[in-house]
Amino acid sequence: MSIDATDHTLFDGGRAPNPRRVAMYLAECDIHVTVKPVDMGALEHKSDSISALNPLKQLPLLQLPDGSVLTESVAICRYFDLLFPGSGLFGEGPKGQAFVEMWQRRIELQFLYPVAQAFRHIHPAMTDWEVPQIQDWGEANKPKAFRFAGLLNDQLKEHRFICGDTFTIADITAIIAVDFSKVARISYDEKLTDLYRWIDEVRARPSYSL
Amino acid sequence: MSIDATDHTLFDGGRAPNPRRVAMYLAECDIHVTVKPVDMGALEHKSDSISALNPLKQLPLLQLPDGSVLTESVAICRYFDLLFPGSGLFGEGPKGQAFVEMWQRRIELQFLYPVAQAFRHIHPAMTDWEVPQIQDWGEANKPKAFRFAGLLNDQLKEHRFICGDTFTIADITAIIAVDFSKVARISYDEKLTDLYRWIDEVRARPSYSL
Repeated sequence: MSIDATDHTLFDGGRAPNPRRVAMYLAECDIHVTVKPVDMGALEHKSDSISALNPLKQLPLLQLPDGSVLTESVAICRYFDLLFPGSGLFGEGPKGQAFVEMWQRRIELQFLYPVAQAFRHIHPAMTDWEVPQIQDWGEANKPKAFRFAGLLNDQLKEHRFICGDTFTIADITAIIAVDFSKVARISYDEKLTDLYRWIDEVRARPSYSL
Repeated sequence: MSIDATDHTLFDGGRAPNPRRVAMYLAECDIHVTVKPVDMGALEHKSDSISALNPLKQLPLLQLPDGSVLTESVAICRYFDLLFPGSGLFGEGPKGQAFVEMWQRRIELQFLYPVAQAFRHIHPAMTDWEVPQIQDWGEANKPKAFRFAGLLNDQLKEHRFICGDTFTIADITAIIAVDFSKVARISYDEKLTDLYRWIDEVRARPSYSL
């Protein structure tokens, strides 16, 4: 069922990992907001108009009907999940929700973050974004991402999705990390067959094409 | 009101930042669990018995009455918050909860994480924990922590606690980051008077003495 939330304005950063997480979440839930695209490639997120809304100069950024400003991709998703309950994307019941949170945090800190560090500290396009760029730190993060991909493969041996039978926000964060790995020039062992089975299934979802 | 949750076993890492976050949360909520101390200084969290429960070899770790194992400090706190609702430590209502999540994430990623990186990549005691130790990366994190302390001071100019009038899990994470700064040899500008006013107030709470 389509949900009209067009009284909310999302300042969107397009294909960058964090904005894309929110776009996938909204598509999974069929929630429609007013979208204002911001060109991160042209560093528009560092403009005065965005800085006035978020001193951290980051996207995505959600303006609520009362004018208040909410940032951080997972906080935005959780807000909609509480406003329009029932998606199950944050899990069900105390135990179910806690295990989604556990995997979400493991993926963020031990997978998405290392991939992002490898990209930001090695890629020539990131010299203005990460000051100082420290090549050795970028390289040190690659084995962390490889290790976590192995752990994820073990989990996916026993489960269709990361937290069990149903798709959750942990799957969104993990596919974003996998895709982001390409620009960080990290590729994963082809022997991780359960990981690749899961990648194919997630990429076939309509929300992925956004 | 005291809550008996002694059918849950917490493998506790003592004064290390993440175990301490859970200890403070449980004390704030007067929740009592069965505690098994694990000596992280002696690397007991890397023992076979802990690795069998958590392949990531990290603490804290909660064993539920059904035997399942929950890790990640915030996931453990959220589990108890859902099981015994009403603490308000994760905020109230969709907007309130989303803003706690926003601050919690800002503090984790832009304050606690930089402080931890500075500690792990500079302190001689961490050579076996962080391989390779990259001094330049440790140093690059100090200005990130300074910058965030300024942002926190701005927020605390207008609010008693970080998310408003009431104490939340964001305050727990932030005081842990402030305390952790000492071993990372980071100290904050004395002109940040609202930050220091808040530090004094949080340190006076009974949960802090744990």
